[in-house]
Amino acid sequence: MSRPIQIVEVGPRDGLQNEKAVLEPAIRAELARRLEAAGARRIEAVSFVHPKYVPQMAGAEEVMAALPPEPGRSRIGLVLNGRGYDRAITTAVDEVNISVAATDGFGLKNQGLDRAGQRAMVEAIVARRHNAERGDAAPSLTVTLSCVWGCPFDGEVSVDQVADMVGAYAALGIREIALADTIGAGDPWAVTKKVEAARKAAPDATLRLHFHDTRNTGLANAHAGIEAGVDVLDASVGGIGGCPFAPGATGNIATEDLVYMLERAGFDTGYDLDALIETARWIGEKIGRPAPSALSRAGGWPGVG
Amino acid sequence: MSRPIQIVEVGPRDGLQNEKAVLEPAIRAELARRLEAAGARRIEAVSFVHPKYVPQMAGAEEVMAALPPEPGRSRIGLVLNGRGYDRAITTAVDEVNISVAATDGFGLKNQGLDRAGQRAMVEAIVARRHNAERGDAAPSLTVTLSCVWGCPFDGEVSVDQVADMVGAYAALGIREIALADTIGAGDPWAVTKKVEAARKAAPDATLRLHFHDTRNTGLANAHAGIEAGVDVLDASVGGIGGCPFAPGATGNIATEDLVYMLERAGFDTGYDLDALIETARWIGEKIGRPAPSALSRAGGWPGVG
Repeated sequence: MSRPIQIVEVGPRDGLQNEKAVLEPAIRAELARRLEAAGARRIEAVSFVHPKYVPQMAGAEEVMAALPPEPGRSRIGLVLNGRGYDRAITTAVDEVNISVAATDGFGLKNQGLDRAGQRAMVEAIVARRHNAERGDAAPSLTVTLSCVWGCPFDGEVSVDQVADMVGAYAALGIREIALADTIGAGDPWAVTKKVEAARKAAPDATLRLHFHDTRNTGLANAHAGIEAGVDVLDASVGGIGGCPFAPGATGNIATEDLVYMLERAGFDTGYDLDALIETARWIGEKIGRPAPSALSRAGGWPGVG
Repeated sequence: MSRPIQIVEVGPRDGLQNEKAVLEPAIRAELARRLEAAGARRIEAVSFVHPKYVPQMAGAEEVMAALPPEPGRSRIGLVLNGRGYDRAITTAVDEVNISVAATDGFGLKNQGLDRAGQRAMVEAIVARRHNAERGDAAPSLTVTLSCVWGCPFDGEVSVDQVADMVGAYAALGIREIALADTIGAGDPWAVTKKVEAARKAAPDATLRLHFHDTRNTGLANAHAGIEAGVDVLDASVGGIGGCPFAPGATGNIATEDLVYMLERAGFDTGYDLDALIETARWIGEKIGRPAPSALSRAGGWPGVG
């Protein structure tokens, strides 16, 4: 068994955005560089959200300027709307990830757009990309669908609702769609069901999974997703971050915990576990609290990573 | 889906035995009573190990005296050898769990017995039980096989080695055999493999799983085990305890985390999640540190538990 699993490192964005500490762009760029040295090939480096709403993400342009393009590496910028895309294409981001919600409630709170409005917003960005606003170097587009396993405003989210949204974004030409358990409310059996429904709705799209460890189900959900055939997962170094809807909870699944589980089972992640753990401890010092990942406390196991 | 999953609560034993705080027998009995009020039907209440080695478990007889027998509830006492069994049968324990190791290295360190010696020790206890030393009320016997997914002294443990041991204990008439990831080194794919091999080696035995969350794989391992057909799992309220071989690591998988994952997916555990979380917080106060479980920090999800 040496099936490769690609991990998209989201610590510099989803992790840091949910930390109290606000880090300078230079530190965030250094985090990205350290993660790349540890093996990250795709990294969500910045968010083009207004700093009034998320001060932790201010200075995305400075972060990107400190990360010169490099073959074989992809730096992702998150956008929530066309204004975010305006900013993204002034930088060297390789990919733009557009975050939308599987529910009206979350979409309205987060972006002021219901589901139909979010689709229209993505459609407009797709059209702009086709017009090649940044020429041949236009960033590729992916979509993350949030609240797939539960919404803090609308509650349960049905399999059909998720499948409908996945089908709609695939129909817009989005080639990779991430299903996100934004508040960490999912369980592995529900992961299997929604991955299967999403694949049926978008058989040609690459599915990606984004889990939060809010209720400790993150790695179980990852296991279920991989067993259901998904090869791309998001994770955050150190498990940093949190959940605005569950104060005291932890953040994304930790990259080093995921790498440990996968490498121990014989999957190929391309990461150096020791370098990851070192980076988790380094960012823990920068944010002023120990990284909550298990591996940064327990250490690995001989021959893994 | 309403498949019942039985959770054996091991917090009063495996949890407390690995905490720095030493609690009086009266508090440990109260913990057992609170857990039973929250839904526990089987509970590892005591260990008949010498208090010189494990002071946290001193006064097992007092704990048991404070727990009068009750129909439908089973209180389990752990023993490591015949001397432990001598003590166990002077109390009202409903079950005796004999802990043995899948490796010579751990068996020698923990009990001064290699694998052959451990089998002989169990065989002698089985013979004594047949002689009905406590009459008709002789406790039932189960075996826990430790280090199934890795040993701190002998390293990797092969599938064949585990299957051999499981087959040997089933041949002694042991009807329930627990496979334990004592140091939390397993991954879910390895769980599937060893569960399948153990079932083949002992098709008539009930398999039980015991996971530690040392490296955050505990719930993923539980998911894999349940998917492989296992219906009985150990868990510890609050996720209390730790790992003597990985200082700073967490303990057993937390009962409330496991209950959340299972009830969310529609399994029936018989537990009241809110009462469990309350008990986790209560024991956190007694041991002087917050319980490390995710649910006791994040809370549940409407309609679960």
